[in-house]
Amino acid sequence: MTVDHALICNLLAEYGALLDAAEYDKWLGLFADACRYVIVPRENHDRGLSAGLIYCDNRAMLEDRIMALREANKYNIHTDRHVIGLPRLIIADGPLIEAPFMVYQTDQEGATQLFATGLYRDRLELVGHDLKIRDKLVLLDTFAVPTLLATPL
Amino acid sequence: MTVDHALICNLLAEYGALLDAAEYDKWLGLFADACRYVIVPRENHDRGLSAGLIYCDNRAMLEDRIMALREANKYNIHTDRHVIGLPRLIIADGPLIEAPFMVYQTDQEGATQLFATGLYRDRLELVGHDLKIRDKLVLLDTFAVPTLLATPL
Amino acid sequence: MTVDHALICNLLAEYGALLDAAEYDKWLGLFADACRYVIVPRENHDRGLSAGLIYCDNRAMLEDRIMALREANKYNIHTDRHVIGLPRLIIADGPLIEAPFMVYQTDQEGATQLFATGLYRDRLELVGHDLKIRDKLVLLDTFAVPTLLATPL
Repeated sequence: MTVDHALICNLLAEYGALLDAAEYDKWLGLFADACRYVIVPRENHDRGLSAGLIYCDNRAMLEDRIMALREANKYNIHTDRHVIGLPRLIIADGPLIEAPFMVYQTDQEGATQLFATGLYRDRLELVGHDLKIRDKLVLLDTFAVPTLLATPL
Repeated sequence: MTVDHALICNLLAEYGALLDAAEYDKWLGLFADACRYVIVPRENHDRGLSAGLIYCDNRAMLEDRIMALREANKYNIHTDRHVIGLPRLIIADGPLIEAPFMVYQTDQEGATQLFATGLYRDRLELVGHDLKIRDKLVLLDTFAVPTLLATPL
Repeated sequence: MTVDHALICNLLAEYGALLDAAEYDKWLGLFADACRYVIVPRENHDRGLSAGLIYCDNRAMLEDRIMALREANKYNIHTDRHVIGLPRLIIADGPLIEAPFMVYQTDQEGATQLFATGLYRDRLELVGHDLKIRDKLVLLDTFAVPTLLATPL
């Protein structure tokens, strides 16, 4: 299966845009029914340590997590801005892609700060004509993330 | 009308590159004859407040604005660097696109700092074989921008 | 010769990803046999000054440089994250492309900081079915870079 470059770019762009617009239900719709979503510091991953900051290996867990984050966000009001770099297609018939990302947060005083940088490693699948995320691994560049991950990355 | 993904990406890349190279005449050439260019903080826009930092609803206004900015830049010497993320095609037959952006500024001492993050929401149109910007809405993540917007975003 | 937009994007994405993963041998493989790699502050380049921070006009020099950097990195342990913006195709039959970039570095304490912003100006060539870098000019936005360029940009 070869997947169109434009389709992959559009999925990544939607992924970031829906988070930034706080449209979490639509964001959940980007995942396949059977999916996995993991956030782990890059260093841990490189050492084979799987302990993640977020680990959801099915959709119900992911939905649950989003509910919890929404609640937490009532006490940490901010907006996010994802900027996702050009994706790299690793296996042409996988398809497995990698894309670097940055997230900026703006608080209620209007101060914008870098929140996180890292790499997405996504296994995608075609569901009908739509490309969906089957497995998303978010490799964070630092282990020193704020304990409160107020939104998904 | 379906517009090619590569064409959209190239237009966005040119948009940023021409601003960063201070080639404002060529930059103006990316807009359709009848065009609109608005910069507004995201928060205001979400609340339905249209008060913008820049509001140009025709090309003469936009040209005038550029002239003024060039003058102002004589007293605020710096260079810009736009990094524009992957675009999201919202309506396939619009075409309306969204793309996140960051702007960094480097001053005469060589210090580089984040200047702004936000989202472009562009309505495009094909003029012959060229894709042009008919309507550009720049949603800034913060209301606390320096009062002097020294170059267009 | 017209080069596919997806192919160009993939080359740039690989370029950044291989540096970030410290896979320097694979990174070298992205260059054509006869190649040039130059890093120069934008200001110098605009004034016609060619004095660069790195100047390699053949592959052996580039390989040698990478060896030296690897050695230096033993004393400056960090990880990089490149985020490369949308490329702009300047000459359709060149192909010459430009793409803005940012590099973030994360140190051993987990602090992530902006390291550099700038513009890539790449002359590419098709070698068989693969797109390779024949000439890479890295225009840095600031002249005030740390003297130790610990990895290629």
